[in-house]
Amino acid sequence: MDDIRFAVLGTGGIGRRTLEVAQYKDGLTPVAACDRNGVAVDHDGLDVEELLAATEGNIASGPTDDGVETDGGASRDAGGASADDAAGGATGSVKQTGDGAGIVASEQGEPTETPIDDVISESDGIDAVVLALPNLEHDFIPRVAERFAAADYEGVLVDVLKRSRVIGMLDDREETLVDAGITFVCGAGATPGVLTGAAALAAQSFVEVESVEIRWGVGLKSGYEDNRGTVREDIAHLDGYDMERARELSEAEIEALVTDRDGVLEFHDMEHADDVLLERAGICDADDVTVGGVLDVRSDKKPVTTTVRVTGRTFDGERGTNTFQLDDATSMEANVNGPALGYVKAAVRRNRTGDYGVFGPAELMPGF
Amino acid sequence: MDDIRFAVLGTGGIGRRTLEVAQYKDGLTPVAACDRNGVAVDHDGLDVEELLAATEGNIASGPTDDGVETDGGASRDAGGASADDAAGGATGSVKQTGDGAGIVASEQGEPTETPIDDVISESDGIDAVVLALPNLEHDFIPRVAERFAAADYEGVLVDVLKRSRVIGMLDDREETLVDAGITFVCGAGATPGVLTGAAALAAQSFVEVESVEIRWGVGLKSGYEDNRGTVREDIAHLDGYDMERARELSEAEIEALVTDRDGVLEFHDMEHADDVLLERAGICDADDVTVGGVLDVRSDKKPVTTTVRVTGRTFDGERGTNTFQLDDATSMEANVNGPALGYVKAAVRRNRTGDYGVFGPAELMPGF
Repeated sequence: MDDIRFAVLGTGGIGRRTLEVAQYKDGLTPVAACDRNGVAVDHDGLDVEELLAATEGNIASGPTDDGVETDGGASRDAGGASADDAAGGATGSVKQTGDGAGIVASEQGEPTETPIDDVISESDGIDAVVLALPNLEHDFIPRVAERFAAADYEGVLVDVLKRSRVIGMLDDREETLVDAGITFVCGAGATPGVLTGAAALAAQSFVEVESVEIRWGVGLKSGYEDNRGTVREDIAHLDGYDMERARELSEAEIEALVTDRDGVLEFHDMEHADDVLLERAGICDADDVTVGGVLDVRSDKKPVTTTVRVTGRTFDGERGTNTFQLDDATSMEANVNGPALGYVKAAVRRNRTGDYGVFGPAELMPGF
Repeated sequence: MDDIRFAVLGTGGIGRRTLEVAQYKDGLTPVAACDRNGVAVDHDGLDVEELLAATEGNIASGPTDDGVETDGGASRDAGGASADDAAGGATGSVKQTGDGAGIVASEQGEPTETPIDDVISESDGIDAVVLALPNLEHDFIPRVAERFAAADYEGVLVDVLKRSRVIGMLDDREETLVDAGITFVCGAGATPGVLTGAAALAAQSFVEVESVEIRWGVGLKSGYEDNRGTVREDIAHLDGYDMERARELSEAEIEALVTDRDGVLEFHDMEHADDVLLERAGICDADDVTVGGVLDVRSDKKPVTTTVRVTGRTFDGERGTNTFQLDDATSMEANVNGPALGYVKAAVRRNRTGDYGVFGPAELMPGF
């Protein structure tokens, strides 16, 4: 496949690591990046080292008129500063804040009040865009997609979100995306991304899948300060909470809630996009998918090993469970960005053949 | 994706199960099948139930002038009668032999002395061909591919072989395949097929893969009589043996060898296509791949659990091992035919977009 020129919207944890990890992959050239205050474009390829140094400790401090935040804090696997930090105020000690920080501090950066529009205006030379943005409102990412469509962008958009309802919102816009020539991949990070991909593969032994059980473990101690948005989002999945209630919590209330649980938050039956994405891919019914996990904000060690178990019936009448496990030593960051870039490549291939619309990661697996 | 019309060459174990398992999958219509004596073609879709009943216990009894055998006995995961049975004579008690057996016994079958050519002559209406043929000579499957190319077949060819050197022979013919418009997927069964696919996925946590360790277990008791060709092929991988020596063994010598080992054959550092296929897919160097396995011909229970371990270094400096395991209850048959049909779908998608040449299964994974 020819070289892929990609852009990153947001240079928080996910955006920065996307740039970093892409350096290890063949055929991926970063040509544009933006954060809330600035944009950097070089169609011959950005100087990633310089940009990473300039954006280290980036933090969002509220939405711009253009709507862009610095980080993808809405993802399970986001690592950097988060949208909720933005709402709650900057608390980290190493973070750069203010108008002079982030991309504008880079030699390659230019200040702008319309960072997303600036990237869109360069999109003729862009094959794929990684949306490493927060999704404070459920429809924020879908609305960004609409803006690319309105500009007749023909290419790939990838997010690493994890909320089932966002998929529906993207589906509602599918005609618009198809008309423009956009291939949108949603949830391409660790989960749903790599774990639904693993489920699709593990399902191949079976002619009927009975259940897919996804259980993740995340240790966050060293990244807790940088992941308050993720923690807040996760709280919405706890019994008795929802997104609205979680968003209204003060920082102190979150601290109290975390302390009350000795730093360990355990989740059952999460509204996680894995279910709808596996149904889309024809692997099983959404109802057969269970997602849960354990987050320990006081330890770097994963409290449970991230595991996918696919149970089914074989053509010859046996019943079994195939298993995929990520080593505890692989950080959530490692498990987000490698797969996301893999899915970018798969999506560009689809896009170049005229395969437009909304896709889940498991749909990009080999015809399963 | 539109409906895929596929053919099966060979109606031994793999060929028959390909037809059987395809019934559970969406979008796959079997339109042609052949064995050494007969061919069945129906572009509206074969009656699989009737064909399976007619070909039950099929056995090859020597190559025809056309070169077609009844089974894919050369595959690790073949289950039916084998090419080596053909050489050694029919020994099974339930097998149908002779000119009146197999596809010609089906209402849909016609006798022929040129079964492969008969399928080739129908190939305008065929999107994919599963080569469930034995590969007595290393270049048999590559030569079959050449025949399809000579007839300007534009479509997919898939085999489930496992020998590294066959890949090289296919590569030698790549220009011919590309010119015709053929997308050839080699080794699309359980191993290399699904296990290299799992390795490609598991590798996504890492920016550098240090090792891929593939270890398979197969229990063959109930299928031993039907799998003598596979056992003979496996013997070629034992210390002190090679393909030539294994082929020269008499049935009695094989029996003695198996008895000497209490029915358990253990293999280390096999010449297995997994290594070259993972290198092709850019996952790691072929030298970093180790393949071994344990075959128990006296027990249905797998002697070891089939496991893929991928060890690597993450972008953030950690080292870990991700793991994929197939449940012992999933038979090798179940693990061959589901993935093979998945890869057929992926290959047809590639073919329809003009992506021709030789591919390993891991190359059909999402851009990893």
